[in-house]
Amino acid sequence: MLEQIDSPYDLKKLDKKDFPLICEEIRQFLIEKVSKTGGHLASNLGIVELTIALHYVFNSPVDKIIWDVGHQCYVHKMLTGRKDQFDTLRKFNGLSGYTKRTESVHDIFGAGHSSTSISAALGIAKARDLKGEKYSVVAVIGDGALTGGMAFEALNNAGRSKTDLIVVLNHNEMSISENVGSLSLYLSKLRTDPTYNKLKQEVDNLLNIVPPIGKSLHKYIERIKDSVKQLVVPGMFFEEMGFTYLGPIDGHDVGSLIEVLERAKKIKGPILVHVITKKGKGYKFAEKFPDKFHSAAPFDIQTGKFVNEGQATYSDVFGKTLTEMALQDDKIVAITAAMPEGTGLIHFAKLIPERFFDVGIAEQHATTFAAGMAVQGYKPYFAVYSTFLQRAYDQLIHDVCIQKLPVVFAIDRAGIVGEDGETHQGVFDLSYLRPIPNITIMSPKDANELVEMVKLSRNLEFPVAIRYPRGKAGEFDITRECSIEFGKAELVTEGKEIAIFALGRMVGKVLEAKEILKVSDLQPFIVNLRFVKPLDEELILDISNKVKFIVTVEDNVIAGGVGSAILELLNSNGIYKPVLRLGFPDKFIEHGDVENLFKKYNLDAESIANTILQKYKEMR
Amino acid sequence: MLEQIDSPYDLKKLDKKDFPLICEEIRQFLIEKVSKTGGHLASNLGIVELTIALHYVFNSPVDKIIWDVGHQCYVHKMLTGRKDQFDTLRKFNGLSGYTKRTESVHDIFGAGHSSTSISAALGIAKARDLKGEKYSVVAVIGDGALTGGMAFEALNNAGRSKTDLIVVLNHNEMSISENVGSLSLYLSKLRTDPTYNKLKQEVDNLLNIVPPIGKSLHKYIERIKDSVKQLVVPGMFFEEMGFTYLGPIDGHDVGSLIEVLERAKKIKGPILVHVITKKGKGYKFAEKFPDKFHSAAPFDIQTGKFVNEGQATYSDVFGKTLTEMALQDDKIVAITAAMPEGTGLIHFAKLIPERFFDVGIAEQHATTFAAGMAVQGYKPYFAVYSTFLQRAYDQLIHDVCIQKLPVVFAIDRAGIVGEDGETHQGVFDLSYLRPIPNITIMSPKDANELVEMVKLSRNLEFPVAIRYPRGKAGEFDITRECSIEFGKAELVTEGKEIAIFALGRMVGKVLEAKEILKVSDLQPFIVNLRFVKPLDEELILDISNKVKFIVTVEDNVIAGGVGSAILELLNSNGIYKPVLRLGFPDKFIEHGDVENLFKKYNLDAESIANTILQKYKEMR
Repeated sequence: MLEQIDSPYDLKKLDKKDFPLICEEIRQFLIEKVSKTGGHLASNLGIVELTIALHYVFNSPVDKIIWDVGHQCYVHKMLTGRKDQFDTLRKFNGLSGYTKRTESVHDIFGAGHSSTSISAALGIAKARDLKGEKYSVVAVIGDGALTGGMAFEALNNAGRSKTDLIVVLNHNEMSISENVGSLSLYLSKLRTDPTYNKLKQEVDNLLNIVPPIGKSLHKYIERIKDSVKQLVVPGMFFEEMGFTYLGPIDGHDVGSLIEVLERAKKIKGPILVHVITKKGKGYKFAEKFPDKFHSAAPFDIQTGKFVNEGQATYSDVFGKTLTEMALQDDKIVAITAAMPEGTGLIHFAKLIPERFFDVGIAEQHATTFAAGMAVQGYKPYFAVYSTFLQRAYDQLIHDVCIQKLPVVFAIDRAGIVGEDGETHQGVFDLSYLRPIPNITIMSPKDANELVEMVKLSRNLEFPVAIRYPRGKAGEFDITRECSIEFGKAELVTEGKEIAIFALGRMVGKVLEAKEILKVSDLQPFIVNLRFVKPLDEELILDISNKVKFIVTVEDNVIAGGVGSAILELLNSNGIYKPVLRLGFPDKFIEHGDVENLFKKYNLDAESIANTILQKYKEMR
Repeated sequence: MLEQIDSPYDLKKLDKKDFPLICEEIRQFLIEKVSKTGGHLASNLGIVELTIALHYVFNSPVDKIIWDVGHQCYVHKMLTGRKDQFDTLRKFNGLSGYTKRTESVHDIFGAGHSSTSISAALGIAKARDLKGEKYSVVAVIGDGALTGGMAFEALNNAGRSKTDLIVVLNHNEMSISENVGSLSLYLSKLRTDPTYNKLKQEVDNLLNIVPPIGKSLHKYIERIKDSVKQLVVPGMFFEEMGFTYLGPIDGHDVGSLIEVLERAKKIKGPILVHVITKKGKGYKFAEKFPDKFHSAAPFDIQTGKFVNEGQATYSDVFGKTLTEMALQDDKIVAITAAMPEGTGLIHFAKLIPERFFDVGIAEQHATTFAAGMAVQGYKPYFAVYSTFLQRAYDQLIHDVCIQKLPVVFAIDRAGIVGEDGETHQGVFDLSYLRPIPNITIMSPKDANELVEMVKLSRNLEFPVAIRYPRGKAGEFDITRECSIEFGKAELVTEGKEIAIFALGRMVGKVLEAKEILKVSDLQPFIVNLRFVKPLDEELILDISNKVKFIVTVEDNVIAGGVGSAILELLNSNGIYKPVLRLGFPDKFIEHGDVENLFKKYNLDAESIANTILQKYKEMR
């Protein structure tokens, strides 16, 4: 049946009784495709019926459906003419794994990060009202994303406006891992407590049954009647925020979903529709391990085993090293914003649960919470993805760095991450961190250096950022003693005429490039910078003085990154030589596999060697 | 009586019946001092009794009192031994206008920006629990600050923990201007609706009065009894968030405050104490115009008139120009995060209320809300202070710039702001904006250029940032046509040997410096850059080729700012000359008057001239 659907219009022509079958087909399609490409499986399996219902009830793109985060938009993509492109999902030049305005008119608002949908939807709804147009605006947001502060800012703003706006709460009790926080607890109560659901009915019954047996009783009842009726409804939280609450609804019953959405469409003002779904629904391994199948690598459908599983990632190396250290130092605490698996802190959480804090999708709070622990003598490590730290930029400055508190930011997914694309490429952190006073920034060239840097950070009594990439880390030894000296770079090879200063994983690429340059008889100095701030000024100046030109290589945009830092240093110290700054250009980097992207942006070993060779020839 | 109080300990020795008198004395002291120094008057007048009660009930610094924003900490400072320094309030080398850890052991956590206190308090409370220590942790937060998303993130996290933590909600219905949002409406309801306050009592009465007149009725009553008791309390919102709610309490009755705080101290888990105060209490002009007396310039006590009132600020120029434009273009909308006065948008709000949006202290939401309006064809102007935009850094990247939406960020208070100090000095924006693709960054040299830039921005169909400083703007003509060309700098004077590239208000200082340099027979090229991104590459390269050395002058940190941008440009184009980059160094800039700060950091005209002259001598 799936064959027949190339647009939401096709869906509307079908018989509703066929929807369960279509849902089944969609699930098979998703499991099959994602098992090959990798991608966000569990969240999409959970939202099949809801997506069908949304596209059946609403008329996209005239009605606007805005998907929070966007990692649950696969079904939406399938229903809006992109089914045939799923073999290219998340691949270079292929279909994006998130909503993207340039990809389809049905992708009203792009996403990738969490908690933005209600704000965008409210903006769209206000625009509609100003123009005097008529259409529905629907934000679809998970209960995890609702823990992000900006979602609350938007609820607070929308609740007071009289604007027609539908927020569909996709409640699966998961962020990526299990959801946390009091709101989550409250939602579960709505979901599970039968008294909540029957209470309103019962109060009505009570008020009808009570006989008029005396003025005193009657007076009381009259007086509280309206108030009690108002109060005794599920969804008080949302009602108090100014929303009309509908729910909870079984999110895997298309009929009920269509019914409630039809109702929501007719009610004026802001509406919240509470839908209960099961993340991973319909694929047993995803139901059992929804966090593992949140963003899945390619896997075997029969066994649920990931291809290439096993090798440690940088996140694992960080998590294990920190846990090891924390077992011997009870001042170390670990913080995550809903990413215990992704950041490798799961090791810590299992062994030292009392010093592990998952604060929800709440990077701002996480950062200032860390600052609070630091003022009382603890050593907090906040493990966070590079682009998510953008959410806590002010807190990093205002709460941590101004007060010079010893919080360590373990910046995971720094540099390009590949398949997740524009929204997740961590190519800005060096530029946005470097101008901030009081912070130390370092980046390891490999897994062992990460072990050492984490160990080094333990005794640094000021803010520290350690940035490292996504992906496999290779061999490492967790017992390794720290041999890194604060603020010192590593001279990897002596050379002549050319100096290459490289950071983090780019050191490896430069070492490969060195072999290629050997053919042309070039032997550059190669320095593993280790520290972006403070720079190893002595070494950099010394070597720069000896060469004709300087090359910097970083996994960051070139504007304001470590290349700029070195250029600034040289110029301030009277060295006016060419500095070839290699890094990402002034554009958002698209999705695709990391190696292809490095090649496209001339940052693979061969391109680096060629660029240097060309510059060398120019200089002669 | 105030004379006798030099520490919270002194306060505890006094007779409680004298507190109203002391409050009176404190108010007189505040009015007198702030009328001379300027400062946050209204918020401090509103919190006199609450501060007394807090320091009476709790034992600072053993118990931790954390002040949100910190602009209401004057009474706290008076009671903790800093009374005698109030003549130096907010002055260079004087008392800070906010809490500051380096100033007193009683300032547990520094602030300046809003909504951070609950996060910090929770961090401190968790640290206490881990150490097995015993003390109270109290966050004092206004209802305005509660609209900031991170406060909600913290409530959500704290509510589910069992941690002992007291949040005192200082409810005055103001952010800086009148507070907005559904939470605010909800709080007012608690405050004003007498049924809310009596309902709990009445339900108890009802349940006691009802006679056992039959099984059916009794069954119903039994069944709902507990639930109703739980539900029919004021403060459901907070109860649902996992807090025990106490209140509302009259915040100007010290006795009641002491009583409720004593009670809060004894209850386990997270507590919310709802205190009603009047902003500006006790000074009629501040009560009447709490927004004007929020952050007040020096004023005449008798008349309430500000000294130096009248001259237009950059904010006024922006606000008036935008309003003028919007009257002729119904696609223009204006957005503020609770700063209609501060940003000059009050003009817009009065004349075009339907296209004016005050979204609360919610910069993240404001930015994405703007993006939402932009996708539907509107042209949103979000006016925001430079350091507050740090709060929306991710949204600026993720929602506006990746999607290349035509949102204009009118960045007020860019560069140093003076008296507000570290937390408010807008010296990072050039560095954090420059690496972001798709954005245009400009800065006007004076009021007329701001008029022109705002007009220029109207037809730019991509993200734009216009940064301008705090303060008086001088004469301007709002009818001025735009003569600025996109991406083009202004060559102010031709010269020789030296090129000075200056940005924004620094152009004025450079022109003064020019007069000083004339004495030494130096006549540099002077360029008003106007655009930081894109740079006027042609002009910059052309002039740089003609000189011995280059000077850049900006009101931003030098790391990654416009000086770095020019250095990068020159080096990439084969110009290897000295670039003297003048701007703020790698430290947080303290409070004080702007002119003193410029002098201290060698950015006044004389210092600029001297630095250039010295460099010139070195170069010969």
